[in-house]
Amino acid sequence: MSRDLYLGIDMGGTQIKIAVVTPKGIIKEETAISTDIKAKPFTILKAIVDVSVRLKSYSKIKSIGVGIAGDVDSKNGIVRFSPNLPKWKNIELKKILEKLTNKKTFVDNDANTASLGAFWLDTKGKSNNLICITLGTGVGGGLIFNKSLYVGASGTAGEVGHITIDPYGRKCNCGNRGCIETFVGAKYLSEYASKYFKKNRSHILDKIINKEYPLITPHLLSKIASLGDKYAKEIWNIVGEKLGIFLSIVVNFSNPDTIVLCGGLSHAAKYFFPRLKSEVNIRAFRSASKACKIIVSKYTHKLGVVGAAMLPKH
Amino acid sequence: MSRDLYLGIDMGGTQIKIAVVTPKGIIKEETAISTDIKAKPFTILKAIVDVSVRLKSYSKIKSIGVGIAGDVDSKNGIVRFSPNLPKWKNIELKKILEKLTNKKTFVDNDANTASLGAFWLDTKGKSNNLICITLGTGVGGGLIFNKSLYVGASGTAGEVGHITIDPYGRKCNCGNRGCIETFVGAKYLSEYASKYFKKNRSHILDKIINKEYPLITPHLLSKIASLGDKYAKEIWNIVGEKLGIFLSIVVNFSNPDTIVLCGGLSHAAKYFFPRLKSEVNIRAFRSASKACKIIVSKYTHKLGVVGAAMLPKH
Repeated sequence: MSRDLYLGIDMGGTQIKIAVVTPKGIIKEETAISTDIKAKPFTILKAIVDVSVRLKSYSKIKSIGVGIAGDVDSKNGIVRFSPNLPKWKNIELKKILEKLTNKKTFVDNDANTASLGAFWLDTKGKSNNLICITLGTGVGGGLIFNKSLYVGASGTAGEVGHITIDPYGRKCNCGNRGCIETFVGAKYLSEYASKYFKKNRSHILDKIINKEYPLITPHLLSKIASLGDKYAKEIWNIVGEKLGIFLSIVVNFSNPDTIVLCGGLSHAAKYFFPRLKSEVNIRAFRSASKACKIIVSKYTHKLGVVGAAMLPKH
Repeated sequence: MSRDLYLGIDMGGTQIKIAVVTPKGIIKEETAISTDIKAKPFTILKAIVDVSVRLKSYSKIKSIGVGIAGDVDSKNGIVRFSPNLPKWKNIELKKILEKLTNKKTFVDNDANTASLGAFWLDTKGKSNNLICITLGTGVGGGLIFNKSLYVGASGTAGEVGHITIDPYGRKCNCGNRGCIETFVGAKYLSEYASKYFKKNRSHILDKIINKEYPLITPHLLSKIASLGDKYAKEIWNIVGEKLGIFLSIVVNFSNPDTIVLCGGLSHAAKYFFPRLKSEVNIRAFRSASKACKIIVSKYTHKLGVVGAAMLPKH
């Protein structure tokens, strides 16, 4: 019997997604279990295997790929530390899964698996040079050069969240000023928007909130922008400007054919995308900017699990 | 007879360097002719071949590589435009040289050949991921990923001169603000330094110049810094800060094992390097910055010709 399918596991902080994926990155079968962050890592891995072996196409699976947030030694398949799973410290994930399943196992961080997911789902494996930017609580990135995952000298290539885009800008938790994360990371954006609306009362926000304004999450900021709030639009415009400056640096430096935006904030793309695009057009080298499609992933929630499955191919 | 040597040609605006190079990037034999920018491209190429065939080791040459400033279609070996050689427009350099020599010929722009030169001369071919930054009138760059030249989707990867490092900074000739070139490009630096010394008289400069201050070239700025001038030191310190911000972006994004600085301004490294280093240490991801050696090329004048010779290997 031919074994030409790949098992992908996306270890999230609330849910663990599991999928069987074809060599072209298409999901054939999928399932999920909720994440018990208090459980021992081995118990969780045992539960994942128990669920996986019951998948109809399990017998055709060739190898396993796992994506997880945090500091991962992908060469040896060890999870050094994961912010979502505080009990996971120096866990030999590859070794454990290989013992439990007798299948070759690959492990990488979630920014890299997301970029492989974007490569297979959003470009159908056609891109040669793709940069995937995850816009969430932080800002992450994964690089695919010549159709292969590029991780750099010590495995941190694409860790773009603390790239300086304004050397004298906002103070970042990392100690510096003007990291891209301080402008578009969800936490910073909420803080900024909340302060902004403390100073500027919004009639639209007044209509939907009948007491003290809550924390202005990106989700709420999208909602009031959709109702026409000019302050919310202004804030999204600033997000677009800063992301545009950032992406112009990426385009000039690495001349990719595709940039894929994904993660929670990417759902608000319609509010920041026009400004983002115009900023890139102004700031990036013309031929490089012409050669680069900037898209919002249509598969944000599937990127991790598909990319994890495809790890052995890259 | 074994043919295992490479011919490199570095087409400069004043001089054309020609060298025979071993497979390890070592120069075996070299010569040069001065550049007649008024001559027809074919005449110049004929002169290059005439000189080359007289080299002792010419018969052992396997292939030819040419580096030239400007817009080069490296795939087809066509020089679309070269700022140093105004008569060179859409010249089929590869075709012409192959016809004249009957040897396979490769052509690329000078930033890429410099990076290959740095790879072979400064790291002896040992680096895996190297970024070469040329600090001259402009700021150029070449990228070597996984020991291969990386040129991106449309061949402009590494064209770093117009990367924004301060979005609200100095106005650049390209129309934007805060490109790295506006802070460290030789022309901008001279302008800035000249203005600076118009406002601040320097006792040291007064001693060596007994009339109106001339244009403060980087060379002069180095000289007065070497004599202890505090203003000159201050300006070099700013150069170090800006280059440090820029390189921290490069380190965070691409996690190289080596960054090589070359070009005219790199000779003044001792005046700007300490600040550059401290800025990178502050701003770059710790493990990425630890993994990256930043060095000043010891072979600035040889990089182009050696890198050109090595083109066929990459």
